Amino acid sequence: MTAVAGTDPRNFIRDLTRSPSGRLLQNALENRWPTTPDRLSTIVRYALLPAGKMLRPIMTLESAAAVGGDPAPVLPAALAMEYLHVATLVHDDIIDADEVRRGRPAVPTAFGLPDAIVTGDHLIFCAFASIVECGAGGVPADRVATAVGALAAAGNDMCRGQILESELVGDPDTGVERYLEMVRLKTGALFRAVCHVGAALGGADEEGAAQLAGYGEQLGIAFQIRDDLLSYTTVAQSIGKSTTSDLSNGRPTLPLLLAHQAASPQVRARLTAALRGHRADPATVAEVQRILADTAALDRTRDCLVGHAGQARDRLAGLPPSTSAALLDAVARWAAAHRW
Amino acid sequence: MTAVAGTDPRNFIRDLTRSPSGRLLQNALENRWPTTPDRLSTIVRYALLPAGKMLRPIMTLESAAAVGGDPAPVLPAALAMEYLHVATLVHDDIIDADEVRRGRPAVPTAFGLPDAIVTGDHLIFCAFASIVECGAGGVPADRVATAVGALAAAGNDMCRGQILESELVGDPDTGVERYLEMVRLKTGALFRAVCHVGAALGGADEEGAAQLAGYGEQLGIAFQIRDDLLSYTTVAQSIGKSTTSDLSNGRPTLPLLLAHQAASPQVRARLTAALRGHRADPATVAEVQRILADTAALDRTRDCLVGHAGQARDRLAGLPPSTSAALLDAVARWAAAHRW
Repeated sequence: MTAVAGTDPRNFIRDLTRSPSGRLLQNALENRWPTTPDRLSTIVRYALLPAGKMLRPIMTLESAAAVGGDPAPVLPAALAMEYLHVATLVHDDIIDADEVRRGRPAVPTAFGLPDAIVTGDHLIFCAFASIVECGAGGVPADRVATAVGALAAAGNDMCRGQILESELVGDPDTGVERYLEMVRLKTGALFRAVCHVGAALGGADEEGAAQLAGYGEQLGIAFQIRDDLLSYTTVAQSIGKSTTSDLSNGRPTLPLLLAHQAASPQVRARLTAALRGHRADPATVAEVQRILADTAALDRTRDCLVGHAGQARDRLAGLPPSTSAALLDAVARWAAAHRW
Repeated sequence: MTAVAGTDPRNFIRDLTRSPSGRLLQNALENRWPTTPDRLSTIVRYALLPAGKMLRPIMTLESAAAVGGDPAPVLPAALAMEYLHVATLVHDDIIDADEVRRGRPAVPTAFGLPDAIVTGDHLIFCAFASIVECGAGGVPADRVATAVGALAAAGNDMCRGQILESELVGDPDTGVERYLEMVRLKTGALFRAVCHVGAALGGADEEGAAQLAGYGEQLGIAFQIRDDLLSYTTVAQSIGKSTTSDLSNGRPTLPLLLAHQAASPQVRARLTAALRGHRADPATVAEVQRILADTAALDRTRDCLVGHAGQARDRLAGLPPSTSAALLDAVARWAAAHRW
């Protein structure tokens, strides 16, 4: 659909968002959620708009096109991915007591906890209603049923990932594997559904849809590792800030876990104490940064990222050449190749 | 499926729950949610079991059978109705800050607010996954898609009903119509889906499914009015207690709204003041009870209940005679005929 592969990697996501698919989706979102006196719709509009990067819905359309399907009737399902994504943001902001989202008061802060719970629920139901809507647009019912199943499975995985994440807080001893399982559930599952739903509605057979689902899952894991890494590597100033945030909320990230794995028992004990104690004083932050450097944890995190992005790209091998297949490949290359 | 019509009305629901359908569903719930070390499943099991009356899932099976369908492959969809119902209870207990449910600590109290949010979300996703499961059991995909759409629409209505209910608190001036709209959305919608899903999966045509959906919606409204009424009429002792509760949380119920509608402007102002002020001192409670008696509000509430139950029964007219059709009719008769 959209040829953006090969453009400047610094502007890759911006160009994708401004592409014809991106604009189509933003307009659809605006049209479906107009300004209204209805309180629930007002909160949903506040949560959804102005639209974010729309990466997930764009990838649903491209997945449908990549398997030879017509993306037009898949549009409601693409919006469903944004609904589910934003539903999790709204509920996560309650769970994490985050008061700011996208530079504005988060939904629970702006509208109160009770209505934020209902808004998240509403967005989940809207996601399923939107998938079903594709049937009215001519998509065969068996594909719709497959897509609904993929969305529900992703939602359930995301719930499991959320619970697992809260179990991991303050506990670096659980190790890298359990962390990656959490990331697969919490972030990988939605990207898996994003591509699975697009492929299934676009008419892929079971094997083809599974390949694209696998691509999405690996890509989602890569994105989360990339986020973990960026918070340590973007600019010198933010290093301390992010390390502070990770330590003070006790949340282990992949660099911390890889450092923990590679460190001596003595150093490991100090890392554990920092995480368990939610300590983020300057001395602790400096020490953790030294441990990350000594254990080459950032390099090893980068290797892990490149590995998952590569696994994502491998799943695209069976697709016939097309601009959509090239775009999906470019997303995975972009995830891994961003400069630090 | 289950012949319970005509049994003693005092034991009607108990007999239904103990019927073969009821036991089948309870066993299925136990088997699908075994004791496990997994935290999320543990909370779900706590929320679902011991099973409640299982009225909604029983009615899904009976709706499938009433349109001539085989209820066996519809079993997962019947469980979906319990999942969605319990999901709303878990989230409602957060919204209303209720600490007790079924005589035990409510889920948010027992497991904390963050995990309660995730558990409610999980149950919603499980509901959709269960509907899709019927496809694997041989139900045609177009029926599955219709059922998913019916469930999603009900969920969205329930969200709108929840928001509307919170808008009605302390405001008896909005009147009976707006209250009944709230009840239709908040309680009617799930019973509508309960019957619509069963009928659709059982193979009803569009018209037949719509009739059963209408039956369910009217029945759900009748149930809520019945609840409103019972809190004023069961035993003398509980009258004061329920009136106290209605007044102290400022929640208008149908008897209060009908009294408000029928009262003089002066009396109306006193009712409004009691609701707005969340006042439940003995003098106010006694005054409200006197106003209810003077305006014959309980009799008029009963008329309204009988009307909705009758509308529910009317929708069954097109069904061929069967024990399932008789059972659905008996549920509506039971709702209206219970002695006060």
